[in-house]
Amino acid sequence: MFFHRQELQHRAQPDKPDAVYARKLQEVLGGQYGEITVAMQYGFQAWNAHIPGKYRDLLYGIGAEEFGHIEMLATMIAQLLEKAPLGVSDDAVQNDPTVAAIVGGTDVQQAIVAGAGARPVDSNGNPWSGAYVTASGNLLADFTANANAEMQGRLQVARPYHMTDDAGVRDLLSFLLARDTMHQNQWIAAAAELREEGAEDLPVPSNFPLGKEDRDVAYQYINFSDGQQAGDGRWASGPTPDGKGEFSYVPEPEPGVPAPPPTHPDSRFYGTTELPNIVEKAAGAAQDALDIE
Amino acid sequence: MFFHRQELQHRAQPDKPDAVYARKLQEVLGGQYGEITVAMQYGFQAWNAHIPGKYRDLLYGIGAEEFGHIEMLATMIAQLLEKAPLGVSDDAVQNDPTVAAIVGGTDVQQAIVAGAGARPVDSNGNPWSGAYVTASGNLLADFTANANAEMQGRLQVARPYHMTDDAGVRDLLSFLLARDTMHQNQWIAAAAELREEGAEDLPVPSNFPLGKEDRDVAYQYINFSDGQQAGDGRWASGPTPDGKGEFSYVPEPEPGVPAPPPTHPDSRFYGTTELPNIVEKAAGAAQDALDIE
Amino acid sequence: MFFHRQELQHRAQPDKPDAVYARKLQEVLGGQYGEITVAMQYGFQAWNAHIPGKYRDLLYGIGAEEFGHIEMLATMIAQLLEKAPLGVSDDAVQNDPTVAAIVGGTDVQQAIVAGAGARPVDSNGNPWSGAYVTASGNLLADFTANANAEMQGRLQVARPYHMTDDAGVRDLLSFLLARDTMHQNQWIAAAAELREEGAEDLPVPSNFPLGKEDRDVAYQYINFSDGQQAGDGRWASGPTPDGKGEFSYVPEPEPGVPAPPPTHPDSRFYGTTELPNIVEKAAGAAQDALDIE
Amino acid sequence: MFFHRQELQHRAQPDKPDAVYARKLQEVLGGQYGEITVAMQYGFQAWNAHIPGKYRDLLYGIGAEEFGHIEMLATMIAQLLEKAPLGVSDDAVQNDPTVAAIVGGTDVQQAIVAGAGARPVDSNGNPWSGAYVTASGNLLADFTANANAEMQGRLQVARPYHMTDDAGVRDLLSFLLARDTMHQNQWIAAAAELREEGAEDLPVPSNFPLGKEDRDVAYQYINFSDGQQAGDGRWASGPTPDGKGEFSYVPEPEPGVPAPPPTHPDSRFYGTTELPNIVEKAAGAAQDALDIE
Amino acid sequence: MFFHRQELQHRAQPDKPDAVYARKLQEVLGGQYGEITVAMQYGFQAWNAHIPGKYRDLLYGIGAEEFGHIEMLATMIAQLLEKAPLGVSDDAVQNDPTVAAIVGGTDVQQAIVAGAGARPVDSNGNPWSGAYVTASGNLLADFTANANAEMQGRLQVARPYHMTDDAGVRDLLSFLLARDTMHQNQWIAAAAELREEGAEDLPVPSNFPLGKEDRDVAYQYINFSDGQQAGDGRWASGPTPDGKGEFSYVPEPEPGVPAPPPTHPDSRFYGTTELPNIVEKAAGAAQDALDIE
Amino acid sequence: MFFHRQELQHRAQPDKPDAVYARKLQEVLGGQYGEITVAMQYGFQAWNAHIPGKYRDLLYGIGAEEFGHIEMLATMIAQLLEKAPLGVSDDAVQNDPTVAAIVGGTDVQQAIVAGAGARPVDSNGNPWSGAYVTASGNLLADFTANANAEMQGRLQVARPYHMTDDAGVRDLLSFLLARDTMHQNQWIAAAAELREEGAEDLPVPSNFPLGKEDRDVAYQYINFSDGQQAGDGRWASGPTPDGKGEFSYVPEPEPGVPAPPPTHPDSRFYGTTELPNIVEKAAGAAQDALDIE
Repeated sequence: MFFHRQELQHRAQPDKPDAVYARKLQEVLGGQYGEITVAMQYGFQAWNAHIPGKYRDLLYGIGAEEFGHIEMLATMIAQLLEKAPLGVSDDAVQNDPTVAAIVGGTDVQQAIVAGAGARPVDSNGNPWSGAYVTASGNLLADFTANANAEMQGRLQVARPYHMTDDAGVRDLLSFLLARDTMHQNQWIAAAAELREEGAEDLPVPSNFPLGKEDRDVAYQYINFSDGQQAGDGRWASGPTPDGKGEFSYVPEPEPGVPAPPPTHPDSRFYGTTELPNIVEKAAGAAQDALDIE
Repeated sequence: MFFHRQELQHRAQPDKPDAVYARKLQEVLGGQYGEITVAMQYGFQAWNAHIPGKYRDLLYGIGAEEFGHIEMLATMIAQLLEKAPLGVSDDAVQNDPTVAAIVGGTDVQQAIVAGAGARPVDSNGNPWSGAYVTASGNLLADFTANANAEMQGRLQVARPYHMTDDAGVRDLLSFLLARDTMHQNQWIAAAAELREEGAEDLPVPSNFPLGKEDRDVAYQYINFSDGQQAGDGRWASGPTPDGKGEFSYVPEPEPGVPAPPPTHPDSRFYGTTELPNIVEKAAGAAQDALDIE
Repeated sequence: MFFHRQELQHRAQPDKPDAVYARKLQEVLGGQYGEITVAMQYGFQAWNAHIPGKYRDLLYGIGAEEFGHIEMLATMIAQLLEKAPLGVSDDAVQNDPTVAAIVGGTDVQQAIVAGAGARPVDSNGNPWSGAYVTASGNLLADFTANANAEMQGRLQVARPYHMTDDAGVRDLLSFLLARDTMHQNQWIAAAAELREEGAEDLPVPSNFPLGKEDRDVAYQYINFSDGQQAGDGRWASGPTPDGKGEFSYVPEPEPGVPAPPPTHPDSRFYGTTELPNIVEKAAGAAQDALDIE
Repeated sequence: MFFHRQELQHRAQPDKPDAVYARKLQEVLGGQYGEITVAMQYGFQAWNAHIPGKYRDLLYGIGAEEFGHIEMLATMIAQLLEKAPLGVSDDAVQNDPTVAAIVGGTDVQQAIVAGAGARPVDSNGNPWSGAYVTASGNLLADFTANANAEMQGRLQVARPYHMTDDAGVRDLLSFLLARDTMHQNQWIAAAAELREEGAEDLPVPSNFPLGKEDRDVAYQYINFSDGQQAGDGRWASGPTPDGKGEFSYVPEPEPGVPAPPPTHPDSRFYGTTELPNIVEKAAGAAQDALDIE
Repeated sequence: MFFHRQELQHRAQPDKPDAVYARKLQEVLGGQYGEITVAMQYGFQAWNAHIPGKYRDLLYGIGAEEFGHIEMLATMIAQLLEKAPLGVSDDAVQNDPTVAAIVGGTDVQQAIVAGAGARPVDSNGNPWSGAYVTASGNLLADFTANANAEMQGRLQVARPYHMTDDAGVRDLLSFLLARDTMHQNQWIAAAAELREEGAEDLPVPSNFPLGKEDRDVAYQYINFSDGQQAGDGRWASGPTPDGKGEFSYVPEPEPGVPAPPPTHPDSRFYGTTELPNIVEKAAGAAQDALDIE
Repeated sequence: MFFHRQELQHRAQPDKPDAVYARKLQEVLGGQYGEITVAMQYGFQAWNAHIPGKYRDLLYGIGAEEFGHIEMLATMIAQLLEKAPLGVSDDAVQNDPTVAAIVGGTDVQQAIVAGAGARPVDSNGNPWSGAYVTASGNLLADFTANANAEMQGRLQVARPYHMTDDAGVRDLLSFLLARDTMHQNQWIAAAAELREEGAEDLPVPSNFPLGKEDRDVAYQYINFSDGQQAGDGRWASGPTPDGKGEFSYVPEPEPGVPAPPPTHPDSRFYGTTELPNIVEKAAGAAQDALDIE
């Protein structure tokens, strides 16, 4: 169960409206790595969790915070849009380039669809998608997904930080940046704890019997490009992070195997085949006309 | 530049057709964490890279391999579909439940649209989307994204491994599982090397001045749920993985701040406002009628 | 701010697993009119509201409940999937039609992607989309959208009610049906109150100056089909619900006006035009070759 | 059957081109509540209707009109784009801010993809989606959907009305506004007639046996937020619009029920489980290796 | 303007219901090359046309027919769904595999969302998308798009023809197949006429000054794979279809040019760069902290 | 197998950065007819091919080239973005219209998401979609699709050619234009060769028995609009391009057949039906309550 309180975790008030910036903040609200994504992602990971206790408590505990972050951003965006231009006549657009420029940089749908409000979309107006959510039931994989989401997310707050000098906006962003710092650290720590406790290990999924994978190629770096320096990294020699092998470097791929011959499905799929087949196909179709009709 | 050779990196031939399984393999080909995703993701990360040398060589070297994996899966899927049922009359569907069942489990579009061929879609028929690709220009963030992609990807090969006992299919999957093992290890090693060399560090982005974030909340676990055990993890006390702080545990959130008052944009957005505003709004609209007309 | 408690508003436990039904319930969770939609819709309407007080309190109060409904459904789905088949060999699919049938009716991604878990998608696997959310800032329009959402939503619970006889599932559905009954009534009542208080009226938006619309056609039913009975309804005669006019019936449309001539944009868009234009276009292009090069 | 006449229902000619405005009008043509949506929605409702006569005649009669509205808007957009800038050199963009501003506010795809033409997309370039269409087979639900569509639609014409002073554009918009006024009234009247005739009633679907829903909570307003005024509305006390109950107000939710324990699906889904399970899982996997191989 | 008549161009009645087949027909109605696509495509091409007369008349004349085809298919689908199973209890699914199989092969949303009705989606439930429409303003390009659409479309009717033996369904399909035959012929004829009349020519767009393209590579077949037979086709030697050159065959690509060095955007994008740059970046960031704060 | 070489097929370097133009080039990279589409389309057609030899070699040979075109465009876009504005304060936006205009015309996600990099999206930010790919297994249909793709693609390079005067950009575009010229010619030649060799013919699919289609309407132009000139084209009289008939012109459609009566699915779908049915429905539901409970 979720409960709502009409308060914000942190102040979310700009010094002044800025409709162009309101569009940019949509990325942080409704983008691939925006707040809707992490809120829903931690929720689904919790609901799909197969183990009670601290890991699931963590997912619940942080997920509800993220729903509050959605709210702070939506509130901020609505205020940034408060003086959004609307009644701009064509003359103004053509004669006052500053006004025109603002029109060009704003999100048309924040105006026409939401009436100067926030929307569950990104900064290019793409609707938020359930496809952004990762919740596999395997916590080591999912905590890595979460670490990535918080890294991309902090990048996507840091960049717009420099696109405004509004102290109110920056105040909220500095709060979000710090929470992203926490969440990066947290998921990395949680992933490490999973491995230490033996609950999961590399490679994910760690319980898949290694004997069923093709161990000969399990630690080879195979270079399919002509870059000469890919062999200099620690992924090309030395022990592997999963503790189960040694990296090796293959400067160019072994010859492959011949591709199997093309398929010949039922002639009634009407694909293009070899000439002898064409005759056969025609015959088959004629036959088919008799049979099926 | 890319070059193609009419060979496969590994054998991709099923022992016998299985149209139901052909649908499942679409996930590994065209799903969120399928081969199209990693091929395109490593490509875009390389093209967006700001640093020449081993990291970019790595991206190019592995990216081209993944394009070949797309090909192996498409080839496999086409063969699994070779005997896909087509001419199933209604009676057969209703009288022979086995045939009917197979029809139910197959991908209708593999038949009708591709004529018993592979498609750039997932196992539910959702078209592959460019939104699956992450390429931020920040390599620590992106290598973490890649590690996650290879973890989810290996999970999504391991699960269908148990959904068939076709030796030919399993042979290919065992190869893909091993390459995913390599790639998990590789991206984790590459991320570690980035930190060791000082090219990037936690929190991402590490060059954003920490003084600009709200450091008071940068290492607090704040519990927005009532789970009692979230404080037991290593994310709740002790040094943080970024080496810059100490985790602390906040059992329940501090009181927030009052939300700002609702916004009142231009009356010509026709939003619903307070009654006094309604009068004003009507007056404004009347005035507007005079002015703008 | 949102807070979470590790409880459910109502019991969500099936009597036994049923992987086929787990797919159906995705519609109620993540479909166009599923619980994610109403939770997010009421949230965005509250955040975009321009008026404090009872209407916004209502949106907040009901929105948080809906987030809890998402949770109940996700929990139910995970349990329905608990015995989902996985290790089905090809022989089993072909020899045991019952098993095969179940495979055909299940959501492949619930298995492969979520590991027998719930997902933010509908019953055909389409990811939930932010485009499902309506939040215009105009409360009379939005409460009508909400009434519709609860009607479609209740239909979409009533239908699957008959697709199972699991008492545990039906117990949860009977709870959701009742809440949808409440919410239909509630939004209809709230819309009526808006009109009674004079905050909004028909036609929406009620403050747009009627003098600016083409009042001659504002209450005409114009019949563009040849159905003879469309004139029998109360939309074809008598007073209009907005209290501002009388319906009239136009049995077939007036002759229209001639369409304007086709456009002729810049020749460098390379559209197809009339022959004389073609010569001109070629000349222009030749000139352009001189000028721009 | 549909027939076309090369006329427009109303004049659709701007006084002068305006490429920035052409983008805005895409919302009215191809947005969630644009003309394509209502044309297709009324069509599908008619084709899915289960009852002949006035209601279906109404759907057909109005649906064909809406297809003509698509045409008027596409015609208008093409004319607004007639002088769209194309050969803008980089210097011009950097030196003449007015030209640059216009470039910023235009739809790049109207130029590059359609060659200065209209497209089936919204004002942010999102393709029109079949997911916008609601056609459930239940007319009371669907007429409410239609009333909402016409309300949102009229809002989305009223707002852009103030974004231009082109008399030709406004002339068309004033016509569309009036038709939306008619259609709001019409669907509200039709919904009322359905109830009066006893064909449908509240709550939708009205034939679902009420005894099967949890009547105890069918009329409770339960406040999941801390707003104090949600109890002041007519949704919190008094008779309900469906005429079957009395609203009541529950100031805060009852304690919930404990969530069921986490699920433990087949170990071959490789989810993360408790430590004892881990051992078991490993054993199971080992066994599996023997069995399945 | 569009007008509707409550008749069908051809009979659309199945001999008996078949819910599994109803899903397949969704491809022909709402798929990428289904009837909605061609109806909308011909409409947008007409509205974007820059030339009055026979070509635009053709687009209008055929476009309206296609809207009627949507209607025939929707009508057919609704009838095929008339006996769609609904009240299937869990026991029935597990004990009667025939019923279960049918459940597996049906479209869940046709049942739950549309109440046994047609939907604007394809056979996998993907909503129809405006992105399927091609309307560029260049008629030679667009008529080629149309020829392709009618070819893919006829394929997608021919394949399902063999998936049923219902005489009523086949009767409608035989009508649609014939119309697709006409439309393939028609668009090919229209494209030829455009070239004969000199309105357009190859390569499209034919008025782009050839002197501005890199003529050295305008007729070279360059072989980026190792297939030996690509040189045997008429695309590798002899005159080109545009009448402006001779094909030549390049057995393997010339060496390319070195890729430009990686980019170094503003340090505040926080991309990963070379180590010296890292120091600089840190200094820049420090400076930035002073400047911007 | 694919191999990568760190070279470009052609120089891809702009004379100077231009962030506004970088957005436009996204269309050529990631739009419906951009380079990702043709690369993937030729790949899937090859993998789905049913015939070895020159046609499949052609697909492989050209497909790999297109992957290299993706790379050239991504490289170009990154350079165009190298000086993309980021630290634009609100004052600058409001006071320097040139800077502001550039902000308005740029792709916000290239900045915030990719850190001044290229993305797999079009010029409006829509993610590239697998739905753009056509690969039916029928080569005559698919080569026509390819000819169309290269025509639309060359149009979409020709138009942006005039939107810049940067010599470096134009140099790359002139190369791409020439390759598109080649590819248009090539697919038209390949389609002709398929017909000459008898592998495929018109109408597609040519092996579908013509006796099964409704030959009476296979060559009729039926005019559903009132344009008088559609009968003047070569699609209205004379021999048909498939060589199997004669076009005829039908100035207006024959009367159609009556639509079948509305459907009456199971009452538990809760659709709206006739009044007698309503009673029945209620009775049925009551009965159902007894039976199913």
